Amino acid sequence: MNIRTIEWENNKVKLIDQTKLPQRLEYLYIDELKDLWQAIKLLKVRGAPALGAAGALGVYLGIRNSKANNFMQFSKDLERVSSYLASSRPTARNLFWAIDRMHEVVFENSDMSVPKLKELLFEEADKIIKEDMASCRKIGFYGSRVIKDKDAVLTICNAGILATIDYGTALGVIYRAKEDNKEIRVFSCETRPLLQGSRLTAWELKKVGVDVTVICDNMAATLMQKGKINVVITGADRIAANGDSANKIGTFSLAVLAKYHNIPFYVAAPVSTFDLTLKSGKEIPIEERNPREIEELLFKKRVAPIGAKVFNPAFDVTPHNLITGLITDKGIIRPQYIKNIDRVVSLSAGRQVGSR
Amino acid sequence: MNIRTIEWENNKVKLIDQTKLPQRLEYLYIDELKDLWQAIKLLKVRGAPALGAAGALGVYLGIRNSKANNFMQFSKDLERVSSYLASSRPTARNLFWAIDRMHEVVFENSDMSVPKLKELLFEEADKIIKEDMASCRKIGFYGSRVIKDKDAVLTICNAGILATIDYGTALGVIYRAKEDNKEIRVFSCETRPLLQGSRLTAWELKKVGVDVTVICDNMAATLMQKGKINVVITGADRIAANGDSANKIGTFSLAVLAKYHNIPFYVAAPVSTFDLTLKSGKEIPIEERNPREIEELLFKKRVAPIGAKVFNPAFDVTPHNLITGLITDKGIIRPQYIKNIDRVVSLSAGRQVGSR
Repeated sequence: MNIRTIEWENNKVKLIDQTKLPQRLEYLYIDELKDLWQAIKLLKVRGAPALGAAGALGVYLGIRNSKANNFMQFSKDLERVSSYLASSRPTARNLFWAIDRMHEVVFENSDMSVPKLKELLFEEADKIIKEDMASCRKIGFYGSRVIKDKDAVLTICNAGILATIDYGTALGVIYRAKEDNKEIRVFSCETRPLLQGSRLTAWELKKVGVDVTVICDNMAATLMQKGKINVVITGADRIAANGDSANKIGTFSLAVLAKYHNIPFYVAAPVSTFDLTLKSGKEIPIEERNPREIEELLFKKRVAPIGAKVFNPAFDVTPHNLITGLITDKGIIRPQYIKNIDRVVSLSAGRQVGSR
Repeated sequence: MNIRTIEWENNKVKLIDQTKLPQRLEYLYIDELKDLWQAIKLLKVRGAPALGAAGALGVYLGIRNSKANNFMQFSKDLERVSSYLASSRPTARNLFWAIDRMHEVVFENSDMSVPKLKELLFEEADKIIKEDMASCRKIGFYGSRVIKDKDAVLTICNAGILATIDYGTALGVIYRAKEDNKEIRVFSCETRPLLQGSRLTAWELKKVGVDVTVICDNMAATLMQKGKINVVITGADRIAANGDSANKIGTFSLAVLAKYHNIPFYVAAPVSTFDLTLKSGKEIPIEERNPREIEELLFKKRVAPIGAKVFNPAFDVTPHNLITGLITDKGIIRPQYIKNIDRVVSLSAGRQVGSR
């Protein structure tokens, strides 16, 4: 791919302003922490892995000009930068995860000089980014095996380039299938209320040259009924020890519909998405977002009457029994999930997993 | 109810401009056929029974000033008016049905004078309107029996006052349950792409004083998963001899989700909606509408990238085996559908049914 969602360039954070898509591909060049905070807050950058990168680069951006000349002072500055950064999106797990990783580097090297610590922080941010790039490609490698030539794939939200650094998880599987010379058609659920499916997924698939058709979320069932969908692949925001997977609202609905129509349903996500402290999906907290997302179309024209209530959960949980397989960077995990997830996640005992 | 979607008042067609909702309740007073044509075309009036009324009143509006002084001339004028009116929405079944009924009156009374024929046409239009009002109330009467006190009802699109004359089919059931002193909560799927659920259903439920919560279509599953929905009730645009029901896109999806969660799923519609010439839902043609409805939010802000394809079916078909019962103005029809539908529809051998 030649699109990069977020990177470090000329001493600045360079990122695609996703609120401008699909109209314009516009980059932001950010060298002030408060501007990055704004960019995260306003969803100019979004998607779990991309937010991880934003968190890591953000810590470096905020700390690089620290005037501290001892560890105590430096760690205080680090704390200030981190908690400010974390306040941009209080429910963004990967943001905190990346910030925590940056902290660990500093605390594991408390004997080093401040300039050296800054250097280590930059290296750690770079590592987080490179790990994501590699991880997406591994997900694509394993996932491509479940895609046949001429398959029509249904997806929701955006688990692609724009949610990661440059390749995607669910869409990474599609990109790899394309690289493997399979002819793939994608149906992209528009994903109300914020329309990541039409605005972002359709945009990047078109950019990469993948045949894409946008549908409203409520049209997936009729496509399945007509035999037009071969496989469903979605991303995940958090996966419990038993395989229950939280992802963008609407995912669970697709899983039920896929089961009813006997269509395989896969979840694609790096092993860092697993949270083995959660026994099942019941323990995953679900963020409820601003009703205005539904009451008004993209915060402009009002479409719901004043006074009508609105329910706006950002995610739902798909129970493991509806999931055909979990496509990870360590291979595809299939039922029995409790046993197999434990084995795969324990084997990949890296900081990435351990620190979640 | 004290809201009337469409009526004849002071020699004009008076109708609610539904494109102005939920912002403003604004009435149009139409005395020129071309303005009614525009109102239908632009969805200022919509919903099968309301379009039937518009068709009937439209024929009278167009013909009342006819200068014909013999039957031949009058029937020519009638033909001109009718085909013009029918061109406003070429797939609106109830529009044609009403126009046909108006024609029949004229042809059954070809021995009468032109002034008398005009009078008969006005009476027929009035009859069509009164029949719908009565039919909705009967649907409400039978349907209320499946609603328990404190039930939470899920619905989609608008099968309410705004789709009929003044009461509704699926929402008529809710209004009757309310009149029967049952405390009801309604969850209204916003119904992409044209948002009849948030713009219209939520508006009229609030107006009538029913507790209503708007959700995006993709949130229905999570509500069911949490045990928050007791029953699903939708309208129907056309029902085949075996009970397969065509309705607004997204209905089939709700039926599958209801089945998975063991929630009763009802379709509410007058017997005139049954089309016994169709053996099953496979024979129901599905209108595909303008991609711009999805590409752009209410024809304004573009949200899908240029060049991405769009699939925009307006309806889907719910197979009869997912339907708990069909709530009609002749009672609730339950499986076995082929036998029971035939019995109910044959018994109600009126012009309303016969002429479809």
